[in-house]
Amino acid sequence: MVHKTRIINDPIYGFITIPNELILQLIEHPWFQRLRNIRQLGLGHYVYPGAIHTRFHHALGAMHLMHEAIHNLRSKNIPISAKEEEGALAAILLHDIGHGPFSHALEHTLVKGVSHEAIGKKFLYELNKEFKGKLSLAIRIFENKYPRAFFHQLVSSQLDMDRLDYLMRDSFFTGVNEGVISTDRIIKMLNVKNNELVVEQKGIYSVEKFLIARRLMYWQVYLHKTVLSTELLLIKILQRAKEIVQKDKNIFSTPALRPFLEKQITIQDFNHKEWLNAFAALDDTDIYASLKAWQHHPDPVLSTLSRSMVQRKLFRLKLQLKNVPPEVREVKKKNVLKYLRSNKIPSEYLHYFFLTGSVNNRAYHYHRSNIRILMNNGALLDVTQASDLTNLRTLSRVVTKHYMAYPKTCDD
Amino acid sequence: MVHKTRIINDPIYGFITIPNELILQLIEHPWFQRLRNIRQLGLGHYVYPGAIHTRFHHALGAMHLMHEAIHNLRSKNIPISAKEEEGALAAILLHDIGHGPFSHALEHTLVKGVSHEAIGKKFLYELNKEFKGKLSLAIRIFENKYPRAFFHQLVSSQLDMDRLDYLMRDSFFTGVNEGVISTDRIIKMLNVKNNELVVEQKGIYSVEKFLIARRLMYWQVYLHKTVLSTELLLIKILQRAKEIVQKDKNIFSTPALRPFLEKQITIQDFNHKEWLNAFAALDDTDIYASLKAWQHHPDPVLSTLSRSMVQRKLFRLKLQLKNVPPEVREVKKKNVLKYLRSNKIPSEYLHYFFLTGSVNNRAYHYHRSNIRILMNNGALLDVTQASDLTNLRTLSRVVTKHYMAYPKTCDD
Amino acid sequence: MVHKTRIINDPIYGFITIPNELILQLIEHPWFQRLRNIRQLGLGHYVYPGAIHTRFHHALGAMHLMHEAIHNLRSKNIPISAKEEEGALAAILLHDIGHGPFSHALEHTLVKGVSHEAIGKKFLYELNKEFKGKLSLAIRIFENKYPRAFFHQLVSSQLDMDRLDYLMRDSFFTGVNEGVISTDRIIKMLNVKNNELVVEQKGIYSVEKFLIARRLMYWQVYLHKTVLSTELLLIKILQRAKEIVQKDKNIFSTPALRPFLEKQITIQDFNHKEWLNAFAALDDTDIYASLKAWQHHPDPVLSTLSRSMVQRKLFRLKLQLKNVPPEVREVKKKNVLKYLRSNKIPSEYLHYFFLTGSVNNRAYHYHRSNIRILMNNGALLDVTQASDLTNLRTLSRVVTKHYMAYPKTCDD
Amino acid sequence: MVHKTRIINDPIYGFITIPNELILQLIEHPWFQRLRNIRQLGLGHYVYPGAIHTRFHHALGAMHLMHEAIHNLRSKNIPISAKEEEGALAAILLHDIGHGPFSHALEHTLVKGVSHEAIGKKFLYELNKEFKGKLSLAIRIFENKYPRAFFHQLVSSQLDMDRLDYLMRDSFFTGVNEGVISTDRIIKMLNVKNNELVVEQKGIYSVEKFLIARRLMYWQVYLHKTVLSTELLLIKILQRAKEIVQKDKNIFSTPALRPFLEKQITIQDFNHKEWLNAFAALDDTDIYASLKAWQHHPDPVLSTLSRSMVQRKLFRLKLQLKNVPPEVREVKKKNVLKYLRSNKIPSEYLHYFFLTGSVNNRAYHYHRSNIRILMNNGALLDVTQASDLTNLRTLSRVVTKHYMAYPKTCDD
Repeated sequence: MVHKTRIINDPIYGFITIPNELILQLIEHPWFQRLRNIRQLGLGHYVYPGAIHTRFHHALGAMHLMHEAIHNLRSKNIPISAKEEEGALAAILLHDIGHGPFSHALEHTLVKGVSHEAIGKKFLYELNKEFKGKLSLAIRIFENKYPRAFFHQLVSSQLDMDRLDYLMRDSFFTGVNEGVISTDRIIKMLNVKNNELVVEQKGIYSVEKFLIARRLMYWQVYLHKTVLSTELLLIKILQRAKEIVQKDKNIFSTPALRPFLEKQITIQDFNHKEWLNAFAALDDTDIYASLKAWQHHPDPVLSTLSRSMVQRKLFRLKLQLKNVPPEVREVKKKNVLKYLRSNKIPSEYLHYFFLTGSVNNRAYHYHRSNIRILMNNGALLDVTQASDLTNLRTLSRVVTKHYMAYPKTCDD
Repeated sequence: MVHKTRIINDPIYGFITIPNELILQLIEHPWFQRLRNIRQLGLGHYVYPGAIHTRFHHALGAMHLMHEAIHNLRSKNIPISAKEEEGALAAILLHDIGHGPFSHALEHTLVKGVSHEAIGKKFLYELNKEFKGKLSLAIRIFENKYPRAFFHQLVSSQLDMDRLDYLMRDSFFTGVNEGVISTDRIIKMLNVKNNELVVEQKGIYSVEKFLIARRLMYWQVYLHKTVLSTELLLIKILQRAKEIVQKDKNIFSTPALRPFLEKQITIQDFNHKEWLNAFAALDDTDIYASLKAWQHHPDPVLSTLSRSMVQRKLFRLKLQLKNVPPEVREVKKKNVLKYLRSNKIPSEYLHYFFLTGSVNNRAYHYHRSNIRILMNNGALLDVTQASDLTNLRTLSRVVTKHYMAYPKTCDD
Repeated sequence: MVHKTRIINDPIYGFITIPNELILQLIEHPWFQRLRNIRQLGLGHYVYPGAIHTRFHHALGAMHLMHEAIHNLRSKNIPISAKEEEGALAAILLHDIGHGPFSHALEHTLVKGVSHEAIGKKFLYELNKEFKGKLSLAIRIFENKYPRAFFHQLVSSQLDMDRLDYLMRDSFFTGVNEGVISTDRIIKMLNVKNNELVVEQKGIYSVEKFLIARRLMYWQVYLHKTVLSTELLLIKILQRAKEIVQKDKNIFSTPALRPFLEKQITIQDFNHKEWLNAFAALDDTDIYASLKAWQHHPDPVLSTLSRSMVQRKLFRLKLQLKNVPPEVREVKKKNVLKYLRSNKIPSEYLHYFFLTGSVNNRAYHYHRSNIRILMNNGALLDVTQASDLTNLRTLSRVVTKHYMAYPKTCDD
Repeated sequence: MVHKTRIINDPIYGFITIPNELILQLIEHPWFQRLRNIRQLGLGHYVYPGAIHTRFHHALGAMHLMHEAIHNLRSKNIPISAKEEEGALAAILLHDIGHGPFSHALEHTLVKGVSHEAIGKKFLYELNKEFKGKLSLAIRIFENKYPRAFFHQLVSSQLDMDRLDYLMRDSFFTGVNEGVISTDRIIKMLNVKNNELVVEQKGIYSVEKFLIARRLMYWQVYLHKTVLSTELLLIKILQRAKEIVQKDKNIFSTPALRPFLEKQITIQDFNHKEWLNAFAALDDTDIYASLKAWQHHPDPVLSTLSRSMVQRKLFRLKLQLKNVPPEVREVKKKNVLKYLRSNKIPSEYLHYFFLTGSVNNRAYHYHRSNIRILMNNGALLDVTQASDLTNLRTLSRVVTKHYMAYPKTCDD
């Protein structure tokens, strides 16, 4: 109910109020509305059926938290002007505007090598033109060029409103309630010192719990082996479709997907509004509707992979701390080759069916926009120094896991 | 995480356990998996951004509640065999298997005059063949041919597990928490008397609250004026597309949507497995991806309506208890005709842009599988008789509201 | 954690902020702190073990809701000065300051005929002296002498912050979640028209749900037959103790309870600060500790009744819409007389063991500070007129139930 | 509503079912009913107003979780007989039966040197006589003499139903939601291997979160500096009252408190049923009602301390990782001596007003009934070995904090 009431129902926060006209117009803009059909966790719902929440809803949620944070800081006598508020709200609302469908897979295929952050900036600049400069402050905050750095830190840091909302929202919708955090509690503990965002000492346990929750969500959701398997499968499907389109112009795709199959996109392309519009036309439905059609394509690689996805016959994926020993690898590879033969798929396509690699996660980065605690005595400490245990220090270590994936029937 | 663990995370109930092998196989069946891409509330997320939950999840939830209900009845010494349990679980799991994308709109257009219940039965019979008769008891329960009627009433009555789950789930995801009900409370109050499902007297307030919640959800969600407006718009788009496809074979559609645009389907068609498969291939992504393409179709009716939908420039819809007075109607009609002229759309297409009709709702039907209360003295009363107030009796009255819808720019 | 942080944890709202110095000082005042040992629902925890929440917590909660309501009204451009805010917050914080332990029983015994409202006013006036007139505006609001009537209506009307909090809190702690209401939702719908508190039309379903919830809580909690039985038993115990103290000065009581056993208090007594202090010294612990001692008192009436309470051997209580027929009554009376004989209690004490009477409840009073709906067209309607169903009109009818109570062993 | 329905409302779990007659009779026993007036967190509500939940409610909750755990283990084909179920339920229900009011303070004063566990055993043995041996199995389970050790581990280990319930319940009622854990999630992950309780590998993150939550609750609630200060104050008050009663027989106390003031109790006393009854007569109301009276006692130590408690003028308490430096200590001591002089309290009573000591906490004990993880490959590992990070190992370190407490007016 965007229009008159300007109040939106939200299962997590109850209500989200749209605070001003600019924010309302941004929400109504087609480039923002398109996020309604882009699921936040891509194919994560293959593992967690509830995880069908969209980037549209996440952006609104993060904007709501920013609103709360500003309200809280003002109550602590941090002066924040109406202009600054508008800028911060617009910056967080649009922080994910560059995301396409299944973003991670996309960055490896349809817009290879072009990050959603880079695309997002192009959208921001173009919107600023359209809105006659009203987004200039939002852009300065976004790019960390505004002197009061805490605004940028609220938008993008290790304790920003983006992370607070997505952790909360992803836990909520997946039903993995280990990840549930107390956003209102953390926000109440925020303060500003020397223009930097800080957390008051009594909030240290909340921050600790937030970092622990983040790590849990990584291994239980974002890097869950079946989620990973689904994502890798999608990458392979899109790579193959892109290869095929070079020789078979008749391969089906929705019109919105077409240009991204046919052309190798670079970030420069997004300097042209037509490509921004083309990108904005693309959403989850294009990928999925096309992929359903590809189940019946004559190319056995494309059809086999597409059927695996649609019928949810996913690859087996082994995920472990140690690298796969070469001998184990060789055994599996042989099984996959046998599988290919029996499915009449040439062995040169092995790399579509036998996938290896690694993923890693670090819950807290020591040197990157770290979380500062304002001690009761006025001192500022990094959160890992302020805590009474070494827990948090261990959270800043990188954990790498190695994977190997292949069709389930290739298991011994 | 269907496979090994057989436990699925659910944001509402925490965990859903898959209780046996048959249920697992039904869930893994492609005809069931397709429900992952069919949203329970269709375009309801245009009003309530969180309302993106799927029929897949609802069916699992209803199955979970059935499991709980059976567990509860057994604890009250109602004997229920393993076979009966399996039958009841399968019946509720598959109760919505006949739904297509945007079901209500579909029944007015792509499968005109064919109800999802009718299609569902065809699916059930075909699945029973495939599962070698293992669904026979489920079908008997579903069709109310099994002597212990309470099983059917748990699947389909005015207090069935379907309604409990959808009311709860729809409230939860929309964030309209007026509709939240205590499913576990109601289930704890269920009992069986003379093979009929009854509610124990102390549960009367819970039933009352359930009926009130149901009425609230009707007017706040299911028949919300913007939701209605969206649904009417979709019906008009699909009607127009179906008209056009007769003369313009080149109009884009996804392959899965194609047959339903080209052919007038009847329920007899679903006697053929190929049509069941065709129907099962169709989901929300086909409709939405096609509709996005139609924004650029040369037909001004189709493109105008499709753009309205994608850009969320919905029709204004007035909803009220009294019929629209003829003079008001005429004024609006003139405005719409002017709008058509200025958009170069012939006036013969007025019925695509000026819509009137009515909707109605009755929270409780007195004569249709009514809710029986088991009084402390052993008597059975209808819930409207057992309550100490006339509230519930008023809930059994039909409330009709009349609507008129047209492009927003036609407002004075 | 009142002091430095001025944030109090609350299981319902998460956090309650203490908004200013005056409110902080009122909370720290011993007359307010004493509410920590006065349970909101008296002996309600005999039926609902969780119902051990205190009037202290309720008063803080109602103050929190007032804070939210003021914040909301300001966002709708209703001007509210800092003085007015302080007055409204103080008025709601202190609205229950006149409550003693087991308030309802007390008003029938220890302070017979003196209402907690009357005592509350005495406290308010005395506090105003102590706070040098800072509570004058609060008192005017409380007594409905302040011209902007909506402040009084927020403190005391059929949709005031008191009721919102107690309904919510009582549901929450009893676990009777049929009574859970959306306080934030209702508050968001409040507005002011002609200085009167109104609810916007779209909030009508929330108000309806609130009234339904209120009725449910009456019958499921406040007038629950076992709760009623407990309360009647306590009244009889205190009456008997008061009789005994006239002849037996040695009967045990805590010092705080003493004066209220010995003297017949009138409202005039509370004009003296010493009696205010005496009343403020009394809490649940005095009643319960004394009652435990009375189990061993030589008077068989007192000891029998006290043992019933402590060991939770409560009276059987029948509660029904129709009056108890005289013949049934006589049969029971005979059983009770037999019981008295076998317990060596003279029959003149029958009225301590055989109790009859009636209770009534009306969820909504039509003529008393009724709830006004602000229709979309600007008209003001009573909520019972604005609703599309007759539900609400039936809620304004009085429902009377008749009871008869006696020792359980007197059942046939 | 114990009686007929045998369903009890619970704000946390919704409903608690009383599973059989023995459990019902135990709950109705006066020794169990008395727990209704013993608050789980003693004076913790001075800091967290919601923390007024009782040991009665906690015992029911733990019993409920045991019921769930047994249900879950059976569903994994662990055979559990009806007898064993009854034993385990009775054992957990009565695990805290030896607690008196303000248990921790009591063990330092009124029953000095006698632990609640020791008293609990006396109650258990006496109840077993009364119930004619029906509690024998419960006692064997409780004392870890039953061969199937997992029953004992469910009652008492580092992941027992006691801890699950109290952590959950304390978080819930305090509103410190960092401590909220997923009891149903953890219970679903339990299994039995070689008669030992184990957690399945996929539950490792839930266990980790449980241990983290436990540590948070220690520092935020159980050892919160104001909670600690309140507890120390109560200890000093009871010590002083016990000293005074030796010379002043007229000092007020409730009858139930009397014997514990007058006599030095030893564990042998509890071999006599009269002392068990005396102990069972004592609850929070005796302590608090007596303490209110002591505000007016002529002894300045007793009256000053009692007034501090009732009026909530608590001691300042400093809590820190390092010991208080002697020079700081001396300065404070001087201030306190000055305070005593000005209050006409002889300096020999310094130890009542200047308190120092230390508290410590270890979230996980490596060698005491540790938590075993059942890895996917069948191996059993301690949870600290099974986790991929060193977090958990650090949780097994003892953290000691030192405190110093004194009247607030002695601050510089």
